[in-house]
Formats: sequence, structure tokens, C-alpha cells
Amino acid sequence: GEFRVAVLTVSDTVASGAGPDRSGPRAVSVVNSSSEKLGARVVSTAVVPDDVSKIKAVVQKWSDTDRMDLILTLGGTGFSPRDVTPEATKELIEKETPGLLYVMMQESLKVTPFAMLSRSAAGIRGSTLIINMPGNPNAVAECVEALLPALKHALKQIKGDKREKHPRHI
Amino acid sequence: GEFRVAVLTVSDTVASGAGPDRSGPRAVSVVNSSSEKLGARVVSTAVVPDDVSKIKAVVQKWSDTDRMDLILTLGGTGFSPRDVTPEATKELIEKETPGLLYVMMQESLKVTPFAMLSRSAAGIRGSTLIINMPGNPNAVAECVEALLPALKHALKQIKGDKREKHPRHI
Amino acid sequence: GEFRVAVLTVSDTVASGAGPDRSGPRAVSVVNSSSEKLGARVVSTAVVPDDVSKIKAVVQKWSDTDRMDLILTLGGTGFSPRDVTPEATKELIEKETPGLLYVMMQESLKVTPFAMLSRSAAGIRGSTLIINMPGNPNAVAECVEALLPALKHALKQIKGDKREKHPRHI
Ligand code: NA
Repeated sequence: GEFRVAVLTVSDTVASGAGPDRSGPRAVSVVNSSSEKLGARVVSTAVVPDDVSKIKAVVQKWSDTDRMDLILTLGGTGFSPRDVTPEATKELIEKETPGLLYVMMQESLKVTPFAMLSRSAAGIRGSTLIINMPGNPNAVAECVEALLPALKHALKQIKGDKREKHPRHI
Repeated sequence: GEFRVAVLTVSDTVASGAGPDRSGPRAVSVVNSSSEKLGARVVSTAVVPDDVSKIKAVVQKWSDTDRMDLILTLGGTGFSPRDVTPEATKELIEKETPGLLYVMMQESLKVTPFAMLSRSAAGIRGSTLIINMPGNPNAVAECVEALLPALKHALKQIKGDKREKHPRHI
Repeated sequence: GEFRVAVLTVSDTVASGAGPDRSGPRAVSVVNSSSEKLGARVVSTAVVPDDVSKIKAVVQKWSDTDRMDLILTLGGTGFSPRDVTPEATKELIEKETPGLLYVMMQESLKVTPFAMLSRSAAGIRGSTLIINMPGNPNAVAECVEALLPALKHALKQIKGDKREKHPRHI
């Protein structure tokens, strides 16, 4: 079947109702329209403020209870005092996936030098891949695009698919 | 006002008086001459030996008591037994900033393959950005140059400047 | 004298006798044939299953008792549930060497986008450099090639060679 994806918008502004969620719907659209290469569909979305315990609660439920294959968080990856999404994420990750961060950084820097200010984390918890992405809607699209050549393969491997165990370079 | 910068030379040789500090004055010059793009000025400098507790003591005072906006450490980032600046730094950092390391590595590798031997760490403590740079005077100039397109923005974000909260890609 | 290298193949398949070790002999050949640039020779090899405690036992003995200069692990760096080589390695490393990972990732991505799925770790324990490489035999050759311009220098620095202390950029 298709991989099940959950998208978490992390933003004080959106969570308080003071502004619209521009990045969440964009991520849903990007993932669902990549279904040919990715074979994935967004089945859950949520919005939380920039708060470590609230971020962790949703991500942990999606991973441990709902057994999502992929969780994308959007926002809270910058340098401001309220940006804590990477710190919340690192507390949940069991295995780091630095190559995904490398590729997102490499591709994002081609668009803007401000990409160096992303502090995104990424890794595996149980059989769920968790990836932080910046809150900017265009950045989300660029980051998914950067991962697309290997993301389906990653999700198959995490589930222990033996046929996916020894591809080139892994 | 201008951002306040402190520069720490980490070197057994310099601290013992056995050799001159070539990287410290170069870093001061590079930062102060970038004032147009960076809006920063070096207000403190110090020299310590390659010793974890001595490095930590100065960096912690500059961050917690003197409220520096930016601390640059120079040296102690290589592979030799006395190189411990990244280890000292990691004990103080509250939030990692991997994108700064990515950009410094990317640019330094264009100059020399020995850049792969830099083990630099970087991150945020309170409202202070702490960045390890290699001890070589030219490397310091190249690393500051690499960060310059986003560094002023980073320092504004750390202070919680709301207007800086949602730029492209963060 | 020459640097002493140990090569550890990490694979359930190979350890159980269900398949041949293709990456181990390839790594031995690559290291020994690079002797002009690297000045190193493989003096020990072993095979272990994808098991944290078994990986750790061999690497720790090679580092602490046998005083190897360089340990290369092959395999177990991917996303599947049994891939735990980076986790075992991180428990042993005293100093991280992120630049080596950067260069291996940079060069591997030029060959295939699946390189982003490598979760390799690398670092120093005592006077031993430990580097995770993917299990694919070609990837091993490419990763050694990527490190070759600075690897000999790295091994000299770790041993505290003073003449190697202040090269360009470190
Ligand atoms: Na790169």
C-alpha cells in the first residue's frame, strides 16, 4: 500500500489563529502530487505552537501509536528564541539520518544563502522517518524535491523490506 | 547598535608565549572591516591554552555575563591530541547550528582538501552565537566570508527581532 | 613505520555464512594499493553480524588493546532495522570528525542519490581514527578515494606529530 505521511505545522502565529497556515497545505500538496515517485499520501495534519513538549506529544503519538511512515515538521528551525523544533525532534530520534540533512542543505543553498540558518534535524524512530523542514512554503517544496530521488527507498528500508537492503551505496 | 563580538585564540603555543598570535588579530581585522555587511565590532579578545576547562570558562563568561552577540574561537579544531575546542564548545551549546558548519566546510574545501580535518562546532547559548574556526589566519578570513551573507540576519534572529522571523527559507 | 589499519565487515549475511564478503577484500585491496599516498597497511580483518555489542567489542579491542591507527567498518549504515553500525560507533567515539563525513557524502552523491541514505559516523578514540563506510564494495573505494588527500595527514596528527600540527586550515 501507500506510505502514510503526517504533516505538522509548528508556529506560534498559526496555532494562535493570528495568521494562516501557508506551509502545511503546500507540504500536503507537494507530497500528494509526488505520489508517482514517492508512493505516499498525507493522512494526518496538525498545528502546534513553538513548544518542545507540544511538538513532542504530536510526533510521538504519530510515530508510536499511529505508526506513520513519514512525519514532516514545518517551521521552528531557525535561530530565534522560540525556534525549538530540532531540539524536540532530537529527543525522539533513535537513529540520525545526516545524509538527508546534507542534501536538503546542499539544494537549499542553491536557492538562497539564508538556507544556512536552517537547523533541521532528521532521523528514525521505530519505523517512522521524521524530517524537519523550514516553515517557508517554497523551502518545503525544495526540500521534498531534494529528497525525492531516495525517499521511497528510505521508507521501504525502514520497514525492513529485504529486497531494498543492498542497493548501491548503502 | 552594533553587534558585540569576542575573539578567543586557543593555542598552547600562543598562551605560553612561545609564538605570536597570528589568527586573533586577523579575525579582529576581518570582523571590523566587514562592518558594512555585518554591523559588528570586536570588543573583547583573549588567549587560552588547548584546555577544555579554560576554553569553557572564557566562553561561558562572555556569553552569560558579558552578553556577547558572537564569539569566534580560533584553533584547536584539528585531529591532534591537544585539539579540544569543539568538545569544550559542545558542552556549552544549547542549540546546534549545522548549516553554518556546512557552509564553512563547503567553502574551505574549495581552498584545500585539508579543510576536511576541521572538526568545528557551532551553536547558540542564550543569545550568543558561538562558532569554532580553524587557527590558520587565512582560514579564519575564508570562514567569516562564507558566513557573511547570512550572519547579520542570524544575530538579529537570536535576539528575537520579530521582523527577522520569517525570511526566505528559515 | 606504516600506519596499521583494521577492516570490519558488518553483515548478518556474511557473518552467518549465507553470502560472501565482497566489501572486506575490496577495502583491503583499496587501502593496500593506496600505500604511496596513505602509507598504511591492513593488518587485521573481521566479520560481525549487525549487532551493537558485537560491533563495539571488536572495534574497542582494535582501538584500546591493539592500538590500530585506522579502523574502517563496512556496512550497516543504511535505514533498515538491523543497520546499527553508526549507533555502535558513536558510543565509542571521543571526538567527532564531521569533515570526513562531509567529504564522503559530497563525493558519493556525485555517483548516486542513494548516497543520502548513508548514516555513517566517524571520529577519534584514543589514537585510533574510526570511519564507517557503506557495505557496497564500490562505495568503499569511492569513500577511501574521497579521504585520501588528507587521510595520511589525519593519522599523523592523531599520533601527535608536531610537524603536522599547523598545516593550512586546521
Ligand atoms: Na556540498
